[in-house]
Amino acid sequence: MLEVLSEHRSFGGTVGFYRHFSESCNAPMRFAVYRPPQIEAGPLPVLYFLQGLTCTEENFMVKSGAQRVAAQLGLLLVSPDTSPRKTGIPGEDDEYDFGSGAGFYVDATAEPWSRHYRMYSYVVGELPLVVAQNFPADSARAGICGHSMGGHGALVCALKNPGRYRSLSVFAPICAPSRTPWGQKALARYLGDDPEHWKAYDATELVSKGPIDLPILVDQGLADPYLAEQLQVDLFEDACAACGQPLVLRRQEGYDHGYFFIASFIESHLRHHARALTGQAEAD
Amino acid sequence: MLEVLSEHRSFGGTVGFYRHFSESCNAPMRFAVYRPPQIEAGPLPVLYFLQGLTCTEENFMVKSGAQRVAAQLGLLLVSPDTSPRKTGIPGEDDEYDFGSGAGFYVDATAEPWSRHYRMYSYVVGELPLVVAQNFPADSARAGICGHSMGGHGALVCALKNPGRYRSLSVFAPICAPSRTPWGQKALARYLGDDPEHWKAYDATELVSKGPIDLPILVDQGLADPYLAEQLQVDLFEDACAACGQPLVLRRQEGYDHGYFFIASFIESHLRHHARALTGQAEAD
Repeated sequence: MLEVLSEHRSFGGTVGFYRHFSESCNAPMRFAVYRPPQIEAGPLPVLYFLQGLTCTEENFMVKSGAQRVAAQLGLLLVSPDTSPRKTGIPGEDDEYDFGSGAGFYVDATAEPWSRHYRMYSYVVGELPLVVAQNFPADSARAGICGHSMGGHGALVCALKNPGRYRSLSVFAPICAPSRTPWGQKALARYLGDDPEHWKAYDATELVSKGPIDLPILVDQGLADPYLAEQLQVDLFEDACAACGQPLVLRRQEGYDHGYFFIASFIESHLRHHARALTGQAEAD
Repeated sequence: MLEVLSEHRSFGGTVGFYRHFSESCNAPMRFAVYRPPQIEAGPLPVLYFLQGLTCTEENFMVKSGAQRVAAQLGLLLVSPDTSPRKTGIPGEDDEYDFGSGAGFYVDATAEPWSRHYRMYSYVVGELPLVVAQNFPADSARAGICGHSMGGHGALVCALKNPGRYRSLSVFAPICAPSRTPWGQKALARYLGDDPEHWKAYDATELVSKGPIDLPILVDQGLADPYLAEQLQVDLFEDACAACGQPLVLRRQEGYDHGYFFIASFIESHLRHHARALTGQAEAD
């Protein structure tokens, strides 16, 4: 049962914000969908966009400008909130980088977070079903993209599920969370203190096991204040090179970590996904 | 003396947020500027964008997607805050439609607002000087655009100053504020109770005095919840027709009042301005 929070006409299609009860998270969850004008033409490929720390289901739809390009390419866009909210877990709103707004796309195993913070299962399993039940989505043609914590999430979801996604790209991802401060803090509290358990949600560790059959597109701003300490794209680049994972890593001079950076390159990412999802030559 | 609050790379140019002391408002004011990549090529035409109720200097730059098109066309974009802030006037933050965030682009004459709320002089006179002193702006080539309360502002600034702006367009403007609730409330408190004084800031009244030598482009969503009560574009359309003012009014089926509407049509508006400001045939 999907509750419509609001819908807005956008580039000939519709941006909508929705709420439903998530079985994975045992809590209400919100997500946003952009339906392009092509929905009349039948089931459309779906691109999931996972957002970063502090974001809600709104940021990507409000700030990226993606709808313009999705309307050209016929892509359905889906962007979930970054965590459950108001679960009643004490302290869930106290920190910007842990708890609400910071689910880190893991299935928490440590109490009390394991009761609700199961964003990995939500994104990979439950959300696609909810989307397929309520929108003209061709679930077999799904791509995934994300930014920062959501870049980590997109890489992890794709690397753990070969064949599930047909296209993958990320902006300024947290590439090695088991070795960097935001990641270590979150993984320790969601998964427990044993760093061995963190590797299951670390893109650099996952890709080291061997390549997946998808090229990975990464844009990383060189003026990003989090690059050296929190993101560490060099580690991921090295791991891809070592195992033969196809990677296009574009270091963007002068760009920082925010949505002005994402908006500048979102068209290029959507065309990357459309080439894989629709086979449109004109997507290039 | 301009204080840089932040600057961000965007579509090969730079979005910046700035603060300075405004003589007009006798208070600090904030504004945003987008410098497109063409700044190296010399002074650029300037497009002012005036925002609506509750907006700050950020909304247009964050939500409209205008930078992509401005980077193609070589337009400098300037968007001021919608009022002075923290002036110390009692109650200035109490209402969303009056006081801070709701300057209505008038020079207040009624106490206590007349001490600081002089957004008309700020936008028409002071801001262009500050921009010219600090950015590669060709002040002789200026256009003006706005949304809702800022659409009212853009119409009023252009209609009161023939020749000052070379291009004009608006989204969902408050067209007849002396006859509609938001406008009446604000004009009465900023200008005093005599409705005769309100007409100097009413676009429908102003255009009735005779046309200006500019075509006016208006987009108005037909699902806009404020259209019938607050905006009343029909009154403005009738007044333009009566006096021979060139008007292109596009009624957009299904679109509402927010930035998803603006983003859908901002490219068309920027190309309208670029045709007048740069003479680029390719602007069309």
